[in-house]
Amino acid sequence: MSASQNTITALLSGTDQPGLVAKMSGWIFERGGNIIHADQHRDMEAEIFFQRIEWTPAEPQDDFQAEVDAFQEFTSGLNMKVDCKLSSKKSRVAVFVSRYDHCLHELILGQRSGELSCEIDCVISNHPDMAEAAEQYGVPFIHVSVTPDTKNQAEKQQLEILKDRNIDVVVMARYMQILSPEFLQAFGKPVINIHHSFLPAFAGGKPYHQAHQRGVKLIGATAHYATAVLDDGPIIQQDVERVSHRHTVEDLVVRGRMLERRVLAQALRWHLENRVLVYGRKTVVFD
Amino acid sequence: MSASQNTITALLSGTDQPGLVAKMSGWIFERGGNIIHADQHRDMEAEIFFQRIEWTPAEPQDDFQAEVDAFQEFTSGLNMKVDCKLSSKKSRVAVFVSRYDHCLHELILGQRSGELSCEIDCVISNHPDMAEAAEQYGVPFIHVSVTPDTKNQAEKQQLEILKDRNIDVVVMARYMQILSPEFLQAFGKPVINIHHSFLPAFAGGKPYHQAHQRGVKLIGATAHYATAVLDDGPIIQQDVERVSHRHTVEDLVVRGRMLERRVLAQALRWHLENRVLVYGRKTVVFD
Amino acid sequence: MSASQNTITALLSGTDQPGLVAKMSGWIFERGGNIIHADQHRDMEAEIFFQRIEWTPAEPQDDFQAEVDAFQEFTSGLNMKVDCKLSSKKSRVAVFVSRYDHCLHELILGQRSGELSCEIDCVISNHPDMAEAAEQYGVPFIHVSVTPDTKNQAEKQQLEILKDRNIDVVVMARYMQILSPEFLQAFGKPVINIHHSFLPAFAGGKPYHQAHQRGVKLIGATAHYATAVLDDGPIIQQDVERVSHRHTVEDLVVRGRMLERRVLAQALRWHLENRVLVYGRKTVVFD
Amino acid sequence: MSASQNTITALLSGTDQPGLVAKMSGWIFERGGNIIHADQHRDMEAEIFFQRIEWTPAEPQDDFQAEVDAFQEFTSGLNMKVDCKLSSKKSRVAVFVSRYDHCLHELILGQRSGELSCEIDCVISNHPDMAEAAEQYGVPFIHVSVTPDTKNQAEKQQLEILKDRNIDVVVMARYMQILSPEFLQAFGKPVINIHHSFLPAFAGGKPYHQAHQRGVKLIGATAHYATAVLDDGPIIQQDVERVSHRHTVEDLVVRGRMLERRVLAQALRWHLENRVLVYGRKTVVFD
Repeated sequence: MSASQNTITALLSGTDQPGLVAKMSGWIFERGGNIIHADQHRDMEAEIFFQRIEWTPAEPQDDFQAEVDAFQEFTSGLNMKVDCKLSSKKSRVAVFVSRYDHCLHELILGQRSGELSCEIDCVISNHPDMAEAAEQYGVPFIHVSVTPDTKNQAEKQQLEILKDRNIDVVVMARYMQILSPEFLQAFGKPVINIHHSFLPAFAGGKPYHQAHQRGVKLIGATAHYATAVLDDGPIIQQDVERVSHRHTVEDLVVRGRMLERRVLAQALRWHLENRVLVYGRKTVVFD
Repeated sequence: MSASQNTITALLSGTDQPGLVAKMSGWIFERGGNIIHADQHRDMEAEIFFQRIEWTPAEPQDDFQAEVDAFQEFTSGLNMKVDCKLSSKKSRVAVFVSRYDHCLHELILGQRSGELSCEIDCVISNHPDMAEAAEQYGVPFIHVSVTPDTKNQAEKQQLEILKDRNIDVVVMARYMQILSPEFLQAFGKPVINIHHSFLPAFAGGKPYHQAHQRGVKLIGATAHYATAVLDDGPIIQQDVERVSHRHTVEDLVVRGRMLERRVLAQALRWHLENRVLVYGRKTVVFD
Repeated sequence: MSASQNTITALLSGTDQPGLVAKMSGWIFERGGNIIHADQHRDMEAEIFFQRIEWTPAEPQDDFQAEVDAFQEFTSGLNMKVDCKLSSKKSRVAVFVSRYDHCLHELILGQRSGELSCEIDCVISNHPDMAEAAEQYGVPFIHVSVTPDTKNQAEKQQLEILKDRNIDVVVMARYMQILSPEFLQAFGKPVINIHHSFLPAFAGGKPYHQAHQRGVKLIGATAHYATAVLDDGPIIQQDVERVSHRHTVEDLVVRGRMLERRVLAQALRWHLENRVLVYGRKTVVFD
Repeated sequence: MSASQNTITALLSGTDQPGLVAKMSGWIFERGGNIIHADQHRDMEAEIFFQRIEWTPAEPQDDFQAEVDAFQEFTSGLNMKVDCKLSSKKSRVAVFVSRYDHCLHELILGQRSGELSCEIDCVISNHPDMAEAAEQYGVPFIHVSVTPDTKNQAEKQQLEILKDRNIDVVVMARYMQILSPEFLQAFGKPVINIHHSFLPAFAGGKPYHQAHQRGVKLIGATAHYATAVLDDGPIIQQDVERVSHRHTVEDLVVRGRMLERRVLAQALRWHLENRVLVYGRKTVVFD
């Protein structure tokens, strides 16, 4: 977690086979690298092996790309899926927003304070409302209007922006549009979303009103990777807040917002530190 | 909360009307009583007023029943629903169990340590498994076998036991049978139940397996009053535990059990202290 | 908590005497007022009575000051200390900062989003660093340099600013100077401070380093009213975050900052809603 | 965590050196073992390497002792300190108690329900009070009276009992005597203790009274390994409970007890699963 040293962080997964840990660490050792963190996990039922390794290659240099390429070749020889990240190369984030600004501020301030190690490259919105907030921070604001008729067109425009700006990850910071399966497919990179969660769950509209009528004692929020099925993607982080009969529906909404921004920022943080490995419908989070 | 003083605790609810607090406290004041705790709540939408008052009547005596009767007459004149409890009179609890014993032990130990101010009068079970555990504590164990064919008959038998033993509240401590609406109606007193809760909720069987497959980061438990609709009664208490990919399904189950016993004991505690007021589908908990 | 209705919120305390609740609510009732929330507490040992009442006076008007004056006269006749707040009149807050900006941003964003119902009137700092941040939000920034030699003079200058700007409450948002007892006395209004807390406590410098060396599993933060004795004032709110051996000292510091801003904002929120009553070395928080 | 498979769990620590992960996992691989879990940590400042590995040796057999011996020889050749545990061999626990029984019940029930994988061999107490409770569970109760004059003699007697009964770990379940440095030295095996923790800390007697007077909003508990310096040993687990002005001193004590038993059981659980590695004044907990 130290910023002072350039490292490579690899996330690996694949069918378990004897000696994987030995082979992986042996490869790094033989090339003179030094393992700083390593965490393994094995799904006992599915017999899948997961690993996160962070290491400093032998000869510090500005660009470890050659080392990464070699490692990827090596691991693909072992039939392992691998995702490498250089600590020196910050992920480029596009924040999608609509009219709520609480998550946007949290992300930008988290980036500024060093909690979120990334570049917040731009804010993309279907409403012009947050232009001033973004520009106040010096972050470019791009308005892409979305209506039922123009949604396809709007998503194409968004995809072009993401491509042009070389975006690595999209964060839906209370973006009130559903991204189509085609968009997610075409983008091909992670999209992180946040939504409220309740125990029990409430189908239909106005969930905070339903939760209030039902007298729940906890409200929750879930950050997950967006998939083609709405709110059903692999969960990265969840948390809850305690509420009581003293809280009005409005109070629940305010508390829900505070919770959402905290959970979303935490999820993005883990993602940026290459701690989250997706498999099937779930994640391994090497926290 | 002091045990050293005999008090009356009243839970009141009814349509809000001007001067309710003044009238209630005025009545106690005029009769020389001393209010120790008072907590009001007003549902702004439904315009319902709720109050919990705990007071010591003027002349300490063993039996405050006359004072309670007078207060009930007074409040019914105000069209308020009232439920009074004397600190000197402990509620008689029947614990319904099946084969899991974690909640049973928690309740009995809580009663012994003074956390739960009640008498645990008996343990009623559809299986003989827990006879020894109950008797070890000196608590009578009553086996009432339940099969699909004999359910009606079994519930009648249970109701007779509850009536004969003068039971005030039933706690379903992982009792794996559904109590019929007819049973609940005939018993006419509170029945507290505990069940696991997840975000998101999982329909169908084996919820812990589903939660594990979905990679949830939190598991929860909800204690509520049993109603005719399964697991839909007014919620008393909820809590969650953090879990991770490192936990097997079995680990989730173990953590879930620890959570269930904590949440159930807390809910019963509030109930015994007359802190829980039910209205509509929810509760006001004066904690 | 509804913004749509003008209310008066009174915090009362004094030696307990029979009939206080009845008298207080009777007074409001007789004048046609409508009690929205009321919460009492009685310190059983000290025999002190505490109450928070929120009500809407009979005839809604822009200025309830006459009603407040009458209530204050009435309660002083009962030897009760009273502090009234009009929902229509927002508290004027001065934020004291040094070089850390996390708490400042949290407060300003909380105010903007409606979580903190107040006016953030100005930012006062002993360093020029945060001028840009404050002005970005349109909040006046005032630099008052403080050195050991000029501290007395600086405090005088600060007091004049607070007086000129009619400030109701000072929030020390990681202001790294100790406010002298004379300053606190002369200001005569609440000053809220935030500091980190550990279990066990660590005397001496670099507490995060000590906590890291000791391998604590929790770090904490405490928000309190500033008093003449450093970090010893009445506690408003406390919270903790879980940490592990995986966290470096820097990680602890980052987590500590996230915790501090959450706890400070929560404490200010309760203060602004007139929920915090100080007595002796502690608080009653009617949450 | 699966009970169905016999495994070896090793906790390793030592000066970091290139290739440790590779060597360790290579050794297991070459002998046909299968790594189920592996977790590494590196203290960046102290340059110490820590590892927990759990594996199934090649040919399942009742007794893996030969494999353990070989592994220990191998790792000592690498100058690593190692501690191995066979899943088939349960730790023998002696519970030290005085007059509070909440922790004792929690431990015994935890053992019975499978949460604590150990044998609770005996209860040792300086008071006769808990004889019945222990014997109710069929656990031998041994009374060793302790007075200031007889403390040395009593500790000798306790040590003999621990030796005779082949005890692996002592749990101080609210044992109200301080074990002398000589006792700890002579026993030479882990002793786990629990104590309450507050923010801020309170020196002197009656900490709950002090905490109540100070109006703390959180109370805490810390489980740690006992060392010669009182309450200063390496921390295993800590947790807190929220309290308010509504709680009396007695309420704090009751909540503190609930917290203590939970934290102590959790700490013992991690210890029994060989997840806790002590170094210097702190622990690495591979949870």
